[in-house]
Amino acid sequence: MTVIGISPAIILVEPQMGENIGAAARAMLNFGLTDLRLVKPRDGWPNDRAVAMAAGAVDVVQNAQVFETVEEAVSDLQHVYATTARPRDMIKPVATPNAAAAELRQFTQLNETCGILFGKESSGLSGDDVTCADTIITVPLNPDYTSINLGQAVLLVAYEWYQHADQTPAKIVRNEERVATKQELGALYNRIETELDARGYFEPIMNRRSVILRNMRNMFHRFDMMESDIKGMQGIVKGLSLNKKDTGK
Amino acid sequence: MTVIGISPAIILVEPQMGENIGAAARAMLNFGLTDLRLVKPRDGWPNDRAVAMAAGAVDVVQNAQVFETVEEAVSDLQHVYATTARPRDMIKPVATPNAAAAELRQFTQLNETCGILFGKESSGLSGDDVTCADTIITVPLNPDYTSINLGQAVLLVAYEWYQHADQTPAKIVRNEERVATKQELGALYNRIETELDARGYFEPIMNRRSVILRNMRNMFHRFDMMESDIKGMQGIVKGLSLNKKDTGK
Repeated sequence: MTVIGISPAIILVEPQMGENIGAAARAMLNFGLTDLRLVKPRDGWPNDRAVAMAAGAVDVVQNAQVFETVEEAVSDLQHVYATTARPRDMIKPVATPNAAAAELRQFTQLNETCGILFGKESSGLSGDDVTCADTIITVPLNPDYTSINLGQAVLLVAYEWYQHADQTPAKIVRNEERVATKQELGALYNRIETELDARGYFEPIMNRRSVILRNMRNMFHRFDMMESDIKGMQGIVKGLSLNKKDTGK
Repeated sequence: MTVIGISPAIILVEPQMGENIGAAARAMLNFGLTDLRLVKPRDGWPNDRAVAMAAGAVDVVQNAQVFETVEEAVSDLQHVYATTARPRDMIKPVATPNAAAAELRQFTQLNETCGILFGKESSGLSGDDVTCADTIITVPLNPDYTSINLGQAVLLVAYEWYQHADQTPAKIVRNEERVATKQELGALYNRIETELDARGYFEPIMNRRSVILRNMRNMFHRFDMMESDIKGMQGIVKGLSLNKKDTGK
């Protein structure tokens, strides 16, 4: 089993039960994953139940990083996946765990940072959480019985990741380019939003502001932006935001 | 999702915790499996904890069949798989869950009966249990952390079964032949053993009797015997077992 490159982060968003955090850690380590991130765990952190359930994977739990927002949790990542059972009203590619694993291996072989979001036990990821991702992962399940728990969802995705260890090297050609991080993308979004707000762009359509902004974020996610694209877009935003020159009109 | 043919049985051998039986039932139903069989569940049957854990998959638990021996549990099956983490000192093909699922789909598309054995939580399947199988399934795991629980093992195997739903039709050609059931194979083994014992075959090598018999069973398992092969072998055994004619020697 040749492991090349870095491994994806598993990001649990507002997990409710410590036991499930521990079970997720075990499933991760079963398949060679160790980068566990938690966004606002319900019962605080550290959590004794997570440690107890983790058994031999306790190091994964104890090294978990805790964040206040999904944006912070993914800020250093270049490729983010969101696991969700329900179809979403968003234009994002949808992959099976198998297809996602093949893609993740290609990215990590290029030393590009990846992460996979898992929602809370009761209701999964919110629409805003999913917006932070480039691709949706949906596990094909018996349509008459689609209830799987958090630990099992992590297990299946981690399993597929491990099964693709020996796949052929990446065919993606990056030349000298680097894929943008989510932090760079987030900074771009914030810049655009700030500039639009400063210009009163949304004032006549304030009730549609959040939908329009979400659509914009989803659109940029689809662009597979490189670092240089971010710079280019920042330049455009800056240019458009300048006050019009007094042209003597 | 086109489901063609029949579905494999999940056979839990001496499961210890009712919770794990319930979790296995859920994992089965998530991926369209419903034929649950139990061999000597430790805490008896029915089991309230299994029912409680099964949640929406309670029908799978309540319709489970209970058997006294592995032989009885697999007697109507034509293809049996054994899940085991440890390498075995037996000549049996070893498959990943992925490869096994592809094979299972080919068999079930031919309406051939299949089952998968899972061992008890503490120690897995015994050597004799594995002998009842044609093929070993081993889940590739991080060699530094190979501990997965019973419900997770069932989940991964059932998941792979479901992922192969749409594979191309079977390429196996059976002509008019029918694959032997394990009952037919078991009857053949018993016949051979009885006849050998009746002749005192093992008397000088009694300490090796069980090893020799296990090797024989494993050998016949590898033969992929058809119904007609069983009849042929039964004829041979019968013929060899006759008293020598007095040829006037």
